[in-house]
This record gives sequence, structure tokens and C-alpha cells, in this order.
Amino acid sequence: MIQVAINGYGNLGRGVETSLANFPDMELAAVFTRRKPADALKISSRVPVVNVNDAAKWTDKIDVMLLCGGSAMDLPEQGPEFAGMFNTVDSFDTHAKIPEYLAKIDAAANKSGKLSVVSIGWDPGLFSLMRMYMGAIMPNGLTYSFWGDGVSQGHSDAIRRVEGVIGAVQYTRPVADAMQRVRNGELPSLKLSEKHTRECFVVAAENADKERIANEIQTMKHYFDGYDTTVHFITLEELHENHSTLPHGGNVIHSAKTGASNAHALEFSLKLGSNPEFTASVMLAYARAAYRLNSAGETGGRTAFDIAPKFLAAGTPDEIVRGLL
Amino acid sequence: MIQVAINGYGNLGRGVETSLANFPDMELAAVFTRRKPADALKISSRVPVVNVNDAAKWTDKIDVMLLCGGSAMDLPEQGPEFAGMFNTVDSFDTHAKIPEYLAKIDAAANKSGKLSVVSIGWDPGLFSLMRMYMGAIMPNGLTYSFWGDGVSQGHSDAIRRVEGVIGAVQYTRPVADAMQRVRNGELPSLKLSEKHTRECFVVAAENADKERIANEIQTMKHYFDGYDTTVHFITLEELHENHSTLPHGGNVIHSAKTGASNAHALEFSLKLGSNPEFTASVMLAYARAAYRLNSAGETGGRTAFDIAPKFLAAGTPDEIVRGLL
Repeated sequence: MIQVAINGYGNLGRGVETSLANFPDMELAAVFTRRKPADALKISSRVPVVNVNDAAKWTDKIDVMLLCGGSAMDLPEQGPEFAGMFNTVDSFDTHAKIPEYLAKIDAAANKSGKLSVVSIGWDPGLFSLMRMYMGAIMPNGLTYSFWGDGVSQGHSDAIRRVEGVIGAVQYTRPVADAMQRVRNGELPSLKLSEKHTRECFVVAAENADKERIANEIQTMKHYFDGYDTTVHFITLEELHENHSTLPHGGNVIHSAKTGASNAHALEFSLKLGSNPEFTASVMLAYARAAYRLNSAGETGGRTAFDIAPKFLAAGTPDEIVRGLL
Repeated sequence: MIQVAINGYGNLGRGVETSLANFPDMELAAVFTRRKPADALKISSRVPVVNVNDAAKWTDKIDVMLLCGGSAMDLPEQGPEFAGMFNTVDSFDTHAKIPEYLAKIDAAANKSGKLSVVSIGWDPGLFSLMRMYMGAIMPNGLTYSFWGDGVSQGHSDAIRRVEGVIGAVQYTRPVADAMQRVRNGELPSLKLSEKHTRECFVVAAENADKERIANEIQTMKHYFDGYDTTVHFITLEELHENHSTLPHGGNVIHSAKTGASNAHALEFSLKLGSNPEFTASVMLAYARAAYRLNSAGETGGRTAFDIAPKFLAAGTPDEIVRGLL
């Protein structure tokens, strides 16, 4: 059994705990937290909860540590730190900073003799793989990524920072017409805001000026400005009742021609009932790969592009050739 | 420039010749044929046409040979033979015989110091990869493969062998309702014949008994028996005018749950204007990988499962991390 640890017990960490039940060759060894005392954190599994400062004592009990912190504040520091002690998998998703992050992880993991896989999940992750496979096979075509329908936690957080807002959930929705044009092979030029709309469910404080709130949301730079944004005001009860799950999904579509006129459309789509539990599932498959590769003597930082598919599968190479090829 | 050779100038070989135009780092060096004299074969490109018996003279002029023969008669012999001289890529698709074929190729390629990638295309090939990734990530779910709409060349050939048939094209069509049930997460148990229907466009000889022909087709063991099969009789002109392209495609759908009730649906779909030109494009991306891996000292037989995605992409590892992750 591959001994897995969770570091950070938020949505993603709990997702790992839940999804792990589907991986018969892995088991949870411990949950690491920054809380003091660690056992102030109540978890669902009957495994030790350990303060991150005691992690070094666990290096021979853990095969792979899943880093479940956020990309903005947690992983830039935690990634290199724990790559210096454990095989790790993370979902670092600040696209522009991935090369720099990967370089730091690579140095730390080579020094510790461990292997770390960065930026794993569905985007970055599976969608990145699809963009790569599709573009490699049909280099003369164009690849389009659409996100949604799903909850954007970053945008929901941004709305919650608006004065007078008590609670909010933001759904990103793909524009069906734009998607159809891509599928039709029109190769349109599309801005992010032409591919997606934003729908916000907002709970306002009593007596708050709803018009001002809606306007502040719709004109918020980097988040909503330029997008077709709808704001609905609802009650706190409605928010809890109808908007407490974290669905997401999206589509990667590649359109290209061969010869004079043969059109090809390649598409990968996800409809996810729980974004964190799915992301966790992808991370667990790569945890298996990290463990196998490190057991075979490999060290350093890796992305999904570096890892041969067979290392993810539960079966032996012969079993996957017979069963899946 | 990677020097590519085509071995076998049928639909697939011509597909390679056409699709190669989209790969800026590759060029066609020669076409190999069993014809004697070789130059009786007229090709579109201005490169030498060489008899296969002279292949040994070309070992230092060819980086990768694409084996474009058929799986039934050609590849079982040609695969190991040419793996003994060149890096090769083929589309061997007799699923049950792949392990045995791969073992022979592996032995030949290890002996010659070359690298051969077998069973490349879309199924086996991309669909196999999708089945593997999806099952590795969500091991408790089920994966369904649907084929079509598209021309099945094996089934078209089978119809042409019926007495009184002058020409025929058979389309495999997925059953929309079955596909919807899978997408809905019902995890139905479906036979091949419950997932697909078969539509046949047949040209009968003058005075042939059409009722007997339709009956022979619909009851043909291993091909049509048990399927919902429709037979249309058309003229030779209609056959040439409306049924001379080779479209195909299909869907791989994986359905699974995490936790108590979070349903996830993963789907990969292809709509291909030209089956041979698309298959050729996949083979060319793997030809690039075969060349790179062998240049780095690797030898032996490989499947798509063995090859890290980055080896397919035209860019450097750093470029693909920055551009695609």
C-alpha cells in the first residue's frame, strides 16, 4: 500500500480524503496542518493529525505527500520545503509562475533524492495534456479551452470583498455559440470574455445598496470588467441550499484540417460534480506515478508532460496493453 | 529535419504523405513499395520510390519509417522485419494479438538498436490513452468506447464479398440513446451491438436478388448478426458521388462518482473528415517521439502508454510548460 499524506485540510485536502477510497493500492497515513495544537483539527479519517513543523519525523512513513494548499499564499513556500523531504504532488495553478516554481521544486527534490509532480489537476493538468496531444497531432490547427459551468472560487472570493456583501457564489459559464463556432471549424479569434459569461448569486446585508453592489461587481477590473456579468440577489438560506456544492468542468476543443478540405474536431470535456474531489483524484493517480518513478531511482521536479501514461495506471504494463490498448 | 519514409502506399500511406505538410520539422525521404519495378507506383511527392527489398540500403538516410500496411496480412511480417533496420511507427490494430506482436517488435528493435512504436492511431492509440487516463483517475467508474459515425473498411470489404455485390460502403453509427445513458451516469451494461447500428450502401449487379443480398448481409456472423443493420441499394454513380470519403470518429466516455453522490463525466470525442489522414497525423507525432527517444539512446518496442507526452510536441520542454500547461 502506498502511504499518502495530506498537507492542508481545506476543500482540496478533504477531497483527497474522500477520493482516496477509490484507490485500492493507497492509504492515508497522516494529515498535516499548520494548526497548533494539531489535534484541534477534526478530520474524518482515523489517522494522526500532525503539525507541519513535525513533518521531518515522518519521512520514512510517507511515500507521497499531497500538497493541498493554495497557489497564492501556501505553495510557493510549502512546495520547495516539502519537496526537500517527501515525494510530493501539488496543484499549483498560477500559470505565469509555473516555470519558476518548477525550477525551485526541481532543485529541492534533486537534493532530497525525491520526486515532485507540480500543477496537477484538470487545468493545469488534464486540459494541459489535451492541449499538448491535440496540438502535437494536428500542429496546423487551433486549440480552444472553455471553462464551466462551474464555481470559480477566486471570483466568489472577490465578490465577498465588496462592501455590503455577506455571501456570494460565482458561476463561470461557457458561451454555447462560441463553442459551436469552434466545433464547426470556423477557427474564430475569441477573447476570454467572448468565450465565457459570469453569473453571480449574492447575499446583501440588510439595507445595503444593491444597485451599487451590482455595479461594483460588474465593473471590477481583472475579474468581471468586459464580461457579460449577471448579478442575482438571494437570501442566505437560498445560498446555502442551492449553491453549496462545487461543480465545475470545461471543454478543450481542437479544430484543424488535413489536405485541402478534410476537417477534424477533437474534443475533451469534463462535467464534474465536485471540483475538489476530481482534482484530488487526478493528484492521487500522479501520486502513484511519483512513488513508482522515485522507487525506480528518478528524482527532481516533473509536470504531467514528463510522465509516461503507464505510470498512472493501477495495472502492470502487460495488463494495460491487454486491457486498454 | 526528421527524415520520414512511408512503407506501403494505400489509404494510410497517402494519408501520411498529405498530413506530413503540417509537420514543419519533418520531411518525406522515400516511399517503399512491394511493387516491381518500384517506379510503376506513381506518388504525389517528388521523392524516390524504392522496392522494399532495397530497404537495407536506406538505413542511414531514414530517421523513422512509417509502416502503412494492414494488420491482417502485412504488419505481422513487416513489423519485425523493418524494426530490425529502422525506427518504426505502425497502426497494428488486431487487439487480441498486440502483446505477441509487441514482443516480436521489441526483440527486433533491441537487436537493431532502434525504437518502434506499435498500435498508433486513434483506436488503438488516442482512445487507448483516454481509457487509461480516465480509468487511472477514477478507478471506480466505467469507461465506454463508441465508434462512428464513420466508414468501417473491414465491414465494407465483407459486404463486397457477398455474391451479386459490385460495390459497398458501411457506416458504423453510435446509438445516441445509449451514449446519453452513459453520459447520465447510469453505468449501463451494453453489448457492442447495443452501442452501434450499421448502415450499408450497396450497389447490386443487374438482375441480382436484392432480398437475398440484404438478408446475407444482415445475418453475416461476426460482422452484422445481432446488429440493427439497414441496407440501402444505390447506383454506382451514387456510391462514387456520395460515399467516397472516409470520415470516422467516436467517443470515449467515463462515468464515475466520488464520495456519496458527486457524479463525474469525462469524455473524449473525435470527428474526423479523413480517417487515414488523421491516423497518419497521430503516427507522425509518434514518429517524432520515436526519433527523439532513439536519439537519446532508447531502443525496443513501445506503445502509446510508454511514451511521455512531451516527446510528441514540437516545442522544447520549457516551451510546452510555458505555452500549454
